[in-house]
Amino acid sequence: MRRAVNFANRLSINQYSVRQLSLADFVAECQKQEVPYVGLWRDKVSEAGGAFRARSLVEDCGLKVSSLCRGGFFPYENETQRQKSIDENRRAIDEAAELGTQLLVLVCGGVTSAGLSASRVMVAAGIATLVPYAMERGVKLGIEPLHPMFAADRSVVTTLAEAQDLAAQFPASVVGVVVDTYHVWWDAALEREVVRAGDRILGYHVSDWIVPLPDVLNGRGLMGDGCIDFPTISRWIAQIGYTGPIEVEIFNQELWRLPGRAAVERIKERFFNCVPAQPLSDR
Amino acid sequence: MRRAVNFANRLSINQYSVRQLSLADFVAECQKQEVPYVGLWRDKVSEAGGAFRARSLVEDCGLKVSSLCRGGFFPYENETQRQKSIDENRRAIDEAAELGTQLLVLVCGGVTSAGLSASRVMVAAGIATLVPYAMERGVKLGIEPLHPMFAADRSVVTTLAEAQDLAAQFPASVVGVVVDTYHVWWDAALEREVVRAGDRILGYHVSDWIVPLPDVLNGRGLMGDGCIDFPTISRWIAQIGYTGPIEVEIFNQELWRLPGRAAVERIKERFFNCVPAQPLSDR
Repeated sequence: MRRAVNFANRLSINQYSVRQLSLADFVAECQKQEVPYVGLWRDKVSEAGGAFRARSLVEDCGLKVSSLCRGGFFPYENETQRQKSIDENRRAIDEAAELGTQLLVLVCGGVTSAGLSASRVMVAAGIATLVPYAMERGVKLGIEPLHPMFAADRSVVTTLAEAQDLAAQFPASVVGVVVDTYHVWWDAALEREVVRAGDRILGYHVSDWIVPLPDVLNGRGLMGDGCIDFPTISRWIAQIGYTGPIEVEIFNQELWRLPGRAAVERIKERFFNCVPAQPLSDR
Repeated sequence: MRRAVNFANRLSINQYSVRQLSLADFVAECQKQEVPYVGLWRDKVSEAGGAFRARSLVEDCGLKVSSLCRGGFFPYENETQRQKSIDENRRAIDEAAELGTQLLVLVCGGVTSAGLSASRVMVAAGIATLVPYAMERGVKLGIEPLHPMFAADRSVVTTLAEAQDLAAQFPASVVGVVVDTYHVWWDAALEREVVRAGDRILGYHVSDWIVPLPDVLNGRGLMGDGCIDFPTISRWIAQIGYTGPIEVEIFNQELWRLPGRAAVERIKERFFNCVPAQPLSDR
């Protein structure tokens, strides 16, 4: 019973893991199956009628929003694009505040024609521009390093070291990092960087790496189907004192073909069997 | 004319870039098009009648062998597998010596059921076992970090930092690293690690990262078709004093569909236009 209680306290299901459901159906299913947190996406929030409406749907089911995906995509080709990106990120911050979640996840964006180094500078500048606004709205920005195979088109920030170097330029009360096992599991420096990040870690996402990889974007695995060592990584995350939600974010065609109820059941089962290395403290 | 001379002095074409040709046809084509080096693969060498026969074919065309691919795949499930891997690597060292090349490229192997950390320990132990034999045969072992998307099934060594940490455990006269742009271009620590590796850099391989990636294994791009900054990376490699061959290693379905002559022409053209950042010193 003890493990079940801890499990129930920490699990968040990211909406894209069960994207076959509308937001209303998704939160209803999570309520039925006693999942306490959900991670939301801006496009789905918009489909549901906007952030205030989405917040009602979530709260009426007794759930909390662990994070909103996503801000970011900072690198630009010209001033118009730069301004557009900043405006879009401000709207994302507004929506996070309206949803009542503290965490906006940043997927920083890929390489522009200015090149890799210049694109990284644009990311830092973009975050710097947003920090005062995020602070004002009470929203934290979580820099999520993406797997290096996404460096060209989705995130020039590819390692936890790099994400932490970026985050360290800003107050810890506003900017931190998000650790997603799919993106960082391979990194020989991961334990060291988790320790270094410490309380800058604002979110912990889990999914597995299947061999052979079915698809770069939509071939993430359910925990237990791949080679990621969840007990070890979860222990590192626990040891630095992270006690927040553990968010299951899986982009997987097979999971999306299941009825929503079955998908949520399967996620719960795998989370329970594979992720918690040891009893984790209650919130 | 100056650039052409330098170009002619440094170019190596890896045999797998033009795998539609037999070894005999491949070296004949390289001779015709004044490509001075070739990189060979063990399976192709075996098809051609073994290392001594392959060496004759290469030398009769006035070419040199820049490297032999590949040793490695050290992680094992049991003692039988471990011994088999060591035996196979000794044969690879023998073949490199017989071919008259100083460099055996190591692709270190993926994750076994013992896990990621234990697999990395197995890689270090495997290299340690081989070092005396490699020294005896006058062959250098070049640890090639592979892109992290290959960590599960091909190489637990994923960054130049990790490769250099490994290499540094052994004498620089026997163990070094190989830098392949496709595998390391995304790394924010690349410049620093190239400088740290210094004369441990035994080989420099080039191919491009296409967006979107057509295929994880066989979707490498010709230089100029992707987002890799060859002038910058080549400048770093030149600055640490590397003056050896620059090997074009491209696994690409489209290149393999061309007649061999056209494939070699295209590789030369792209190498000449995209890779040398500045006139490089003659050997």
